[in-house]
Amino acid sequence: MQQNHKSLEYEAIIAKIYQALEEDSIDRFRSEFLELHPYDQANIFLNLLKETRLQIYTYLSPDEMAEIIEHFELEDVSEIITEMNPRFAAQIFDELSTDDAVDIMNILERNQIASYLTLMNREEAKEIKNLLHYEERTAGSIMTTEYVVVNQNMTIRQAMLHLRDEAPDAETIYYVFVIDDDKRLVGVISLRDLIISEEDWVVSDVMSERVVYASAGDDQESIAKLMRDYDFLALPVVDFKKHLLGIITVDDILDVMDEEASDDYSKLAAVTDMDRNDLSAIDAAKKRLPWLIILLFLGMITATLIGQFEETIAEVALLAVFIPLIAGMAGNTGTQALAVTVRGIATGDVMSEGAMKRLMRETLTGLITGVICGVTIILIVIAWQGIDQLFLGVVVGVSIMASLIVATIAGSFLPLLMHKLNIDPAVASGPFITTINDIISVIIYFGLATTFMEYLT
Amino acid sequence: MQQNHKSLEYEAIIAKIYQALEEDSIDRFRSEFLELHPYDQANIFLNLLKETRLQIYTYLSPDEMAEIIEHFELEDVSEIITEMNPRFAAQIFDELSTDDAVDIMNILERNQIASYLTLMNREEAKEIKNLLHYEERTAGSIMTTEYVVVNQNMTIRQAMLHLRDEAPDAETIYYVFVIDDDKRLVGVISLRDLIISEEDWVVSDVMSERVVYASAGDDQESIAKLMRDYDFLALPVVDFKKHLLGIITVDDILDVMDEEASDDYSKLAAVTDMDRNDLSAIDAAKKRLPWLIILLFLGMITATLIGQFEETIAEVALLAVFIPLIAGMAGNTGTQALAVTVRGIATGDVMSEGAMKRLMRETLTGLITGVICGVTIILIVIAWQGIDQLFLGVVVGVSIMASLIVATIAGSFLPLLMHKLNIDPAVASGPFITTINDIISVIIYFGLATTFMEYLT
Repeated sequence: MQQNHKSLEYEAIIAKIYQALEEDSIDRFRSEFLELHPYDQANIFLNLLKETRLQIYTYLSPDEMAEIIEHFELEDVSEIITEMNPRFAAQIFDELSTDDAVDIMNILERNQIASYLTLMNREEAKEIKNLLHYEERTAGSIMTTEYVVVNQNMTIRQAMLHLRDEAPDAETIYYVFVIDDDKRLVGVISLRDLIISEEDWVVSDVMSERVVYASAGDDQESIAKLMRDYDFLALPVVDFKKHLLGIITVDDILDVMDEEASDDYSKLAAVTDMDRNDLSAIDAAKKRLPWLIILLFLGMITATLIGQFEETIAEVALLAVFIPLIAGMAGNTGTQALAVTVRGIATGDVMSEGAMKRLMRETLTGLITGVICGVTIILIVIAWQGIDQLFLGVVVGVSIMASLIVATIAGSFLPLLMHKLNIDPAVASGPFITTINDIISVIIYFGLATTFMEYLT
Repeated sequence: MQQNHKSLEYEAIIAKIYQALEEDSIDRFRSEFLELHPYDQANIFLNLLKETRLQIYTYLSPDEMAEIIEHFELEDVSEIITEMNPRFAAQIFDELSTDDAVDIMNILERNQIASYLTLMNREEAKEIKNLLHYEERTAGSIMTTEYVVVNQNMTIRQAMLHLRDEAPDAETIYYVFVIDDDKRLVGVISLRDLIISEEDWVVSDVMSERVVYASAGDDQESIAKLMRDYDFLALPVVDFKKHLLGIITVDDILDVMDEEASDDYSKLAAVTDMDRNDLSAIDAAKKRLPWLIILLFLGMITATLIGQFEETIAEVALLAVFIPLIAGMAGNTGTQALAVTVRGIATGDVMSEGAMKRLMRETLTGLITGVICGVTIILIVIAWQGIDQLFLGVVVGVSIMASLIVATIAGSFLPLLMHKLNIDPAVASGPFITTINDIISVIIYFGLATTFMEYLT
């Protein structure tokens, strides 16, 4: 990757920026710093000491600072905003895209929000207040109100002039949304189409009328899927009367996809809310302990169950040897079935196929993998312990077979059930399903062993 | 989600399309079908019978068909392409974006590729041949060659005229790339900047010179991260002399992110290559069995190890009761540490922090969680078995503590090591690390138990 920040050229620029800061030279700082992409500006800014940051606030205008802040991780913003003069911060909020401003407001404290809204430009403050109502992870929470809208009766020339006026503030100008006289969304026209159209044509003749839109309450994950499927760069959000409320742009969708992927991934591994790299060990432990303690108590159920078979074990100690193997295999297949089903639900595949059909298929898959693994283990046990232990081998093999079938069904049934009950199926984590399957497999194993005890001794 | 395909209006359109097909009415079919978004066209098309599809090939032009095919999943394309008249297929390849054409070629058989390339337009065939060389999952494999490029000495007016000519074929016109007389990439200019500039200005004065670019061999995941960080809609790809080879557009990046997320998720659950929903149970079993068999043999190592302690178990059967609990807890913490580290590597956080620091932090996290879980289990064992079993409780508690520490270190060390060795760290799956940690925890547990045997009996 030939990225800026690895090149020597880039290192030289950073050195110049530091020097300008040290010598308190506004002009040299601005000429070097503002040449960089805001993402790079953000990275440099976050590595500075607080006193240097305070110095920079006097060098940059609110809109220059706003561009930098749009590239911060949300976790870093609140410290930065709080250390600024509140009036300067309010001016920054005026300049931010409304969707980014709302994201930041959402992590600030109530009285902080109130004071910034009071200091802000009235128009901007009103727009942000409207957006603050939307629930997290919905279309409303990620949309912005800075878009270009034209009336369907305008000519292409009028539309282009309007677009040129609005361009500096708009989040995207590559889609222009078309409304009728009642301000309802009736179409969309791309800048590409505007450019290749004749100037005196009318917008309503050129626009695409079959416009795909979302409602403010739609889940952000389904929006991401929609934009990916249709290759949209922007998607309009409307109310129940089809009035345009805002638009969602593809750059926000990239963040949504990343967030959702991290989220599913952490849940599969039972990490509540992914630890960030700058967490201390204590905070990381705090995030992981709740799950571990739950799993500890679930594990005690397994232990109690095995405790019921203490006598069986005392008689044939060799039985204990296979406990982790059987429990482990059940856990592994369960996790596989779980992952496939959770991803299937996320992509919508499972729903179009039907939950019942899915479950049937997983059962059959469990049967096939169960029989093959079961037969394999019988052969291994005989090879290891000799033909005398044929019965032990059969008990272990049959247990693995039964456990794999049940575990596969459990692994696919649980997320389907949760989805039906409107719970995020990704919450059913790997360790959770593993522990459930531990319990099931131990019951099967010791049930079988106790029943056929006479052949084992 | 107010998507087209849920509305009544949409159902009515589909009914009309089917009717037109039945009555063999080309005009009515075209007027209804072509109004739809190509993604919807693709969905309808894939639900038709083969004979109806053959009928449609005579109704649509190659470029209309190409637009539909661009919205297929890759798995569906080869059947469709193969059933067409080869000459028609070759014309479709002419019309496809080069990046999509290459993706499709890559899943066809060698002799098929050769015959399509021969039938194709010479220019297009040459471009595709050039792109076929790039390895999968690199920038080269996802870039397209349909972009708009202007010389730095052009005026804005000339550039806009050139853009208008190129617009119909270009993958994006929202970024225009600027080259010098030696055809090297020297800048980029957005359509937004072109529109708000005066017509007689020169491109080199308006363009941004600090252009971020990728090399053809760069990994697609790092490209996705770059485009997300910088909010790019398109990224240029250059050779070692900075000649422009192609561009990567954001719609392809959405697919890449989805692919990579699915991939990491499946690997964590040890599913080789995510099962698709339309796989038969046998195919699904085939995909899952390799991992299960490997894990079965790894599980046998655990079994063999416990086998060494058969006498210990025969003496104190109660010891066996805690095997799944200890192994399970080690597996769970290991998976947590693994997931956090793999994600950290993927987002680049870990590398900026330093692997050693990461490992230290994870060790401390393991120590904290280990001590807390260990003390908890001692109390539980005493509550369950009475104070007589204090020593058993201590052995179990200390084993859990030690296992958690080692498992956390293993879970974070393994992906870091793999990353160092240039192996995708996501390959270290949950079940794999779980099995490794099973082995470690069993050694610790029985090691302790055997050492302190006299206190246990």
